Amino acid sequence: MTKLLVPGFKASAVAAGLKKVKGLDLALIFSEKEAVAAGVFTSNKVKASPVILSYEHIRDGKIRAIIANSGNANACTGKVGLDNARLTANSVANELGIRHDEVVVASTGVIGAHLNMEMITHAIPDLVKKLSPEGIPQAAEAIMTTDSFPKISRFEGVAGGKTYRIIGIAKGAGMIMPDMATMLCFILSDISIDGEDLRKALLKSVGTTFNRISVDGDTSTNDMVVVLANGMAGNGQLSAVDYEGFQEGLRDVMSDLATMMVRDGEGATKVVYITIKGAKTQLDALTAAKTIANSPLVKTAFYGQDPNWGRIMAALGRSGIVMKEEDVNIWIDDVGIVEGGLGIGIDAEKRAAEIMKKKEFNLTIDLHQGSYEDRVTTCDLTHDYISINADYRT
Amino acid sequence: MTKLLVPGFKASAVAAGLKKVKGLDLALIFSEKEAVAAGVFTSNKVKASPVILSYEHIRDGKIRAIIANSGNANACTGKVGLDNARLTANSVANELGIRHDEVVVASTGVIGAHLNMEMITHAIPDLVKKLSPEGIPQAAEAIMTTDSFPKISRFEGVAGGKTYRIIGIAKGAGMIMPDMATMLCFILSDISIDGEDLRKALLKSVGTTFNRISVDGDTSTNDMVVVLANGMAGNGQLSAVDYEGFQEGLRDVMSDLATMMVRDGEGATKVVYITIKGAKTQLDALTAAKTIANSPLVKTAFYGQDPNWGRIMAALGRSGIVMKEEDVNIWIDDVGIVEGGLGIGIDAEKRAAEIMKKKEFNLTIDLHQGSYEDRVTTCDLTHDYISINADYRT
Repeated sequence: MTKLLVPGFKASAVAAGLKKVKGLDLALIFSEKEAVAAGVFTSNKVKASPVILSYEHIRDGKIRAIIANSGNANACTGKVGLDNARLTANSVANELGIRHDEVVVASTGVIGAHLNMEMITHAIPDLVKKLSPEGIPQAAEAIMTTDSFPKISRFEGVAGGKTYRIIGIAKGAGMIMPDMATMLCFILSDISIDGEDLRKALLKSVGTTFNRISVDGDTSTNDMVVVLANGMAGNGQLSAVDYEGFQEGLRDVMSDLATMMVRDGEGATKVVYITIKGAKTQLDALTAAKTIANSPLVKTAFYGQDPNWGRIMAALGRSGIVMKEEDVNIWIDDVGIVEGGLGIGIDAEKRAAEIMKKKEFNLTIDLHQGSYEDRVTTCDLTHDYISINADYRT
Repeated sequence: MTKLLVPGFKASAVAAGLKKVKGLDLALIFSEKEAVAAGVFTSNKVKASPVILSYEHIRDGKIRAIIANSGNANACTGKVGLDNARLTANSVANELGIRHDEVVVASTGVIGAHLNMEMITHAIPDLVKKLSPEGIPQAAEAIMTTDSFPKISRFEGVAGGKTYRIIGIAKGAGMIMPDMATMLCFILSDISIDGEDLRKALLKSVGTTFNRISVDGDTSTNDMVVVLANGMAGNGQLSAVDYEGFQEGLRDVMSDLATMMVRDGEGATKVVYITIKGAKTQLDALTAAKTIANSPLVKTAFYGQDPNWGRIMAALGRSGIVMKEEDVNIWIDDVGIVEGGLGIGIDAEKRAAEIMKKKEFNLTIDLHQGSYEDRVTTCDLTHDYISINADYRT
């Protein structure tokens, strides 16, 4: 378990009673030293109260604690919801002896219901008492909702001759889930890094990881990725090379966690890596990949293990990108199924169908319109997705 | 059955053998007189061969015959596909003694497979022999794919003191379906109308009917709506008032057929009429309605009969429209469930859940940002949708 330690960080979790099904539902992360912090938050115009508050608190780049609950999203709860988020931050700050604006608050769960503040304020002293360097795995468990496994990833690097660590925990079984608003990710590092560099590294990593996955094309009201770095590795000023190393490590941790989310996507049985090559622009490459990743017809074909390229062509055609039907090539892993917009044949499709029986495979499309490329990771659309989401509140 | 007659039009259908499951799969419609014609076609950049050809043929506004097959979309079939569509038009023209550019060709079925031209050319003399004024219902049956019922609608109006008729037939169990590309609609009228007026009336009606339904948010490669008017009602020059009457009749027929498509949507158990009021712009109203209509989470909540307004708020928030959470009101039929962005309460939700047990209900949202309004008709997302689409080709 020493692998899941980051010097200077402690964590804890308790069962406060917020979840219908009993279990850990409140997590606390604490940095013994002041840490530089960066965060990205949902682009949804309907923002949960903890998102609004945490965005305020993280602006100055200094955070000491993160408190996160599952079972209730504290979204669409108006002024009362914002007051409750503030009260949570204040209680944590008082108990830890830090400033209230050094606390990030995160929530995930049902939208539109008020938090039970009695449960939360009652649990906070206990949470603080339980803080321990070994507490990170419990915190990862406490933020789960419909997740079927806790999501943790780690990286170790060297900067200025000193070893540093990055540990990330995340929850989310979809880009969006039901009322289970949705994706939370907290990353801790003991690297010494300038706040602006941390923000840059986070933004760059988000672009190629969490912003490149999709389970169902929706975007939640509560999404949040927060990274804290406390400098305890003692690496001094980061060199350009060491910054690159950290940036790559951060990206790896986030990529790892993002892929875990797709793998744990609601009802998902398969992870599909969609790569678009030869796009005329970067935006075209991304748009094409996203349109395919979110097409219910393509996703049900993944589920059916059917190399149904007609659906892929139709999705490309409606995506609005620059394309010519007769220029399109398509592969499943290394098996070509479409060349010049036409099906290669039944033998190729049979081989592709075999590959699609695997739990993970690649779908690659070359548009031959330019030199831009992008990649989105998605899952299939299954009977279980319907069951999970049709029955969720009932 | 006399209600399904339009003077001067004949139709027929045969089982040519194009469908896996035996049954009528080739339909012919013939206008004894030259008819003015107007058409709208898919906006998908991947266009099926019959779409490309029919678009060419209808440009001069004169059409005498429509031949339509099910079982094969003749899409993504390249030069061979276009040759096959031309050959089909030529065979029909020869057999009927009309010009090849007076023939509209339509196809629906699997994408990426070549038409069996032997079956088609063999069947055409028989189709022509069977032409009859009573043949319209059989034609409606022959264009079905995964449809569970034939879709026919009629209207009778008076212009210049003369009675005229509009009969429309359509197929489609989704805005897009699988490889089953997708929506076809043929409308016949004996009204006397100027070609430009017919085109205007068609475009206006499409905007508020077929372009306002969604089953799964995809757009097919084969969509086509064609209307023919042969003037046999003898109403002479259309007055402005009579044009309005015709326009409304045409819209009613198309609206009727469009609703039938949603009702017959793949796996659908419910039809939901989504109305957005108080939008800042017309585009905002439409965007909001479409985003909600295509959200897998909202659609599974419809299926679960759950007035899960958090999912609706989240969909509005990510739609990109101008909105303020605290201004949003939401109703299921006449039961308010959200006021000022907040849930009204459990009693209201219980009453809404009762309403959602019905086969059809209204979801109304007032954004309070302006005076624009739009409406989209959609269906729920169910286990059967997954089954139909995961198992389709296998």
